[in-house]
Amino acid sequence: MSAQIDPAALLSRISFDADGLVAAIAQQHDSGEVLMMAWMNRDAVAETLTTGQVCYWSRSRGKLWRKGESSGQRQRLVDLRVDCDGDTLLVLVDQDGVACHTGRRTCFYTAARPEGLVEVAPVLVPPEQLYGA
Amino acid sequence: MSAQIDPAALLSRISFDADGLVAAIAQQHDSGEVLMMAWMNRDAVAETLTTGQVCYWSRSRGKLWRKGESSGQRQRLVDLRVDCDGDTLLVLVDQDGVACHTGRRTCFYTAARPEGLVEVAPVLVPPEQLYGA
Repeated sequence: MSAQIDPAALLSRISFDADGLVAAIAQQHDSGEVLMMAWMNRDAVAETLTTGQVCYWSRSRGKLWRKGESSGQRQRLVDLRVDCDGDTLLVLVDQDGVACHTGRRTCFYTAARPEGLVEVAPVLVPPEQLYGA
Repeated sequence: MSAQIDPAALLSRISFDADGLVAAIAQQHDSGEVLMMAWMNRDAVAETLTTGQVCYWSRSRGKLWRKGESSGQRQRLVDLRVDCDGDTLLVLVDQDGVACHTGRRTCFYTAARPEGLVEVAPVLVPPEQLYGA
């Protein structure tokens, strides 16, 4: 997809919550792997569409979070979809390296199984390598 | 997966929000298609794990929402995963028919493209057939 999309149409379709945020699910575009879920505000949605690099809103830091800015693990936008009631986005991305701050490809690495909680995805990059020692 | 999983371990890992809810992404287990995003409370998580049928919490109706109860479009639980910070679940399901109340397979059928918002998934079941005339 072109990195240059006017965000006006999408923004008018989104129902931002009381904090001005919308949930955003990141999915690897070709493998279908669900990588993470985060939040976007209007500025993050607009920046993502106009730059083609995925940008979230960090609720903990209270500022725009250009994914990969410190870790290098960027997400290139492939397609951006909104759900039927406008309160969730599905962001199809091409993920550089790993999405999770633990160094795993996906944040969803813990499964509830009969034997208890089981880790189902390995650490691919040591976290200290992602964020410096 | 077995339909009989003790929910205690998973419940202790989840960070429910101020309303007692956790976001839950439903993904078709084999195709990888992201179907919908909804919410669960403690009871919905426990019921899903113990019955093997996916149950959400309906924020609009203020009660448990046994997916497919009225439409017949049920979700059988295949695997349930929690993310690294415990505030989002990934529910791998086997979806009967369609997930969206509009009669589409997925709720994420609207894409932001250079030419505007584009529908990328067809209506497979007329909504009036899902919920009666």
